[in-house]
Amino acid sequence: MTAQAIRRDSAHSGSRIPAEELEAFIARALVAVGLPDADARGVAELMTLADLRGADGHGIFRLPQYVRRIRAGGINVRPQIKVLQERGASALVDGDNGMGHLVMRYATQVAMDKAATAGVGWVGVRRSNHAGPAALYAMMPLERDMVGLYLAVGNANHMAPWGGIEQLLSTNPIAVAIPALEEAPVVLDMATTVVAYGRVKVAAQRGEQMPEGWMVDHRGRPLTDPSRAEDGVLLPIGGYKGYGLSLVFGLLAGTLNGAACGRSTVDFNKDDVTPTNTGHTIVALNIETFAPPKAFKANVDALIRDIRASRRMDGVDRIRIPGDASHATFLDRRAGGIPMAGSLQQALRRLATELGIEFAR
Amino acid sequence: MTAQAIRRDSAHSGSRIPAEELEAFIARALVAVGLPDADARGVAELMTLADLRGADGHGIFRLPQYVRRIRAGGINVRPQIKVLQERGASALVDGDNGMGHLVMRYATQVAMDKAATAGVGWVGVRRSNHAGPAALYAMMPLERDMVGLYLAVGNANHMAPWGGIEQLLSTNPIAVAIPALEEAPVVLDMATTVVAYGRVKVAAQRGEQMPEGWMVDHRGRPLTDPSRAEDGVLLPIGGYKGYGLSLVFGLLAGTLNGAACGRSTVDFNKDDVTPTNTGHTIVALNIETFAPPKAFKANVDALIRDIRASRRMDGVDRIRIPGDASHATFLDRRAGGIPMAGSLQQALRRLATELGIEFAR
Repeated sequence: MTAQAIRRDSAHSGSRIPAEELEAFIARALVAVGLPDADARGVAELMTLADLRGADGHGIFRLPQYVRRIRAGGINVRPQIKVLQERGASALVDGDNGMGHLVMRYATQVAMDKAATAGVGWVGVRRSNHAGPAALYAMMPLERDMVGLYLAVGNANHMAPWGGIEQLLSTNPIAVAIPALEEAPVVLDMATTVVAYGRVKVAAQRGEQMPEGWMVDHRGRPLTDPSRAEDGVLLPIGGYKGYGLSLVFGLLAGTLNGAACGRSTVDFNKDDVTPTNTGHTIVALNIETFAPPKAFKANVDALIRDIRASRRMDGVDRIRIPGDASHATFLDRRAGGIPMAGSLQQALRRLATELGIEFAR
Repeated sequence: MTAQAIRRDSAHSGSRIPAEELEAFIARALVAVGLPDADARGVAELMTLADLRGADGHGIFRLPQYVRRIRAGGINVRPQIKVLQERGASALVDGDNGMGHLVMRYATQVAMDKAATAGVGWVGVRRSNHAGPAALYAMMPLERDMVGLYLAVGNANHMAPWGGIEQLLSTNPIAVAIPALEEAPVVLDMATTVVAYGRVKVAAQRGEQMPEGWMVDHRGRPLTDPSRAEDGVLLPIGGYKGYGLSLVFGLLAGTLNGAACGRSTVDFNKDDVTPTNTGHTIVALNIETFAPPKAFKANVDALIRDIRASRRMDGVDRIRIPGDASHATFLDRRAGGIPMAGSLQQALRRLATELGIEFAR
């Protein structure tokens, strides 16, 4: 969709709001519920970046839920985030039940600092919370010419083990960010299910049926009615392979870090009070051990260009690199503002009134 | 399949051969083509382990090809495998075009030694060769109570970018091994395609059609005739997601290490001479930074047992953990020998005659 098309679309359903206005609003809201000023601004910056990159279900959309959870005492607004144990290239970070964005920004900094000297930094995180889209943290190391790799345990179980029907696993995502020279970086950000649960919720809101292949019911039959989603489970990508990926990511980001995974996962959509004990893993990899960064990045460009220029199937207009679409959205929204549906704007205006603060406009 | 059933099956199509006999035969064959004795025994041990764990396409099945390649000068039988560059927790290993098994055993040792002190070891490898199944190397750190993670660039391109029809990517696999206490370790070993190319070759040999979903032709239509496999591409798991995984694994295991990826990949089935410059990545992670290993492994047991005991779909007799099937095969084959089809036995007997050595029996 072109910038013009998005603007036309937004004209019908809502409007575009400049990123800096949204960011300032988010910060005001978080200060109103008790976050220190600098922390509120830090979270607001990352939430807005999620929206700028098109992760619409992981940015400002989550603000009413965060506020509700903070007011219910489910998130610690004055956390003591710290390293519990460490070695030269690894660390375990305790998030003290703080906002996930602050915990992950801290943990990623630790990983990058370790990678700068040791070559790699592997940091596990416990007692964190929802932190927005996975790509946010995988991309932070790009600024220091490093590769980023992020794993997390999702905050609700919507997947069953392969062959099972009990919701024991989450959509545990992986994100990998690899710098390029002149091209946009390669940024993969994916759930281990065919679709994320958010797409089911969107289909339900719109009254649309889901295609077969997204979910199955408790007997393994295709489930296409999103209003019955509670009766079913999301399907993993590649069948048992996606189940295996979700399990090992859960073991590494959750169990290994003393964080929730499996039955101990708290559904943060249904429970505003119980600490989620969210687990994450962030790995920063220093390129310099392997190659001069500039030479490596030129080789990434070359592979990207080979792929882009390769022969396409009939009917395919272009071949994309992971991250292309988000990067285009980022450029468009940074220039023209973040499109926002009328219903979300209304919810945010109500929130502003409740908190006694100004909305964006 | 029970051990008895396998034995009955083997009675028709071949027979079972004790692992130690196969291993000794492989070592004799490799010595006959010039490998030093200790190296030949090292490769033979790993190749036999592949067969013991049921990776039938990655063990002794490959011996005739390896011998052909060595005789053609495509593999260096006296490599100087060494660390080219390193930091406290990372290293770049040059395989000097040696047998991949030797290169990867060396690299994994480097990774574990770094993890023992720094907490994690990330080792990239260039100028290696086919090294058998991914799980072999991911599992090595288990012996030191470490987690293993392995990535590789496959030795032939059978996948296209999503939306494309050019074979620019391989089935680039990932393997992750996580130790348990009383349970068998969790061992995920998977290609990023729906099936590995070996399954297409098996279907072709047997004259069977493939199900839809394995391959598509150059117009994106399902390709089900395996004799036409050259005209098509393997499909990635989860569509664009599996394409993304293959690409980032290729960039990390190949491009970053100065190894082949994309157009520079050599098809080792068609070319016995050109060095493949195979790239791998092995990561060893020391559990001790995060938890006492015994406590962590008990938690892994608990999650495994929750999953195994969870409710099943109708018609499903048990829920498996990644690695279960390979572990059962290992126990069975170690006790009762490795079943071997008559055609493979004949090929190996011919090889023995050519090399002037004894076959297993």
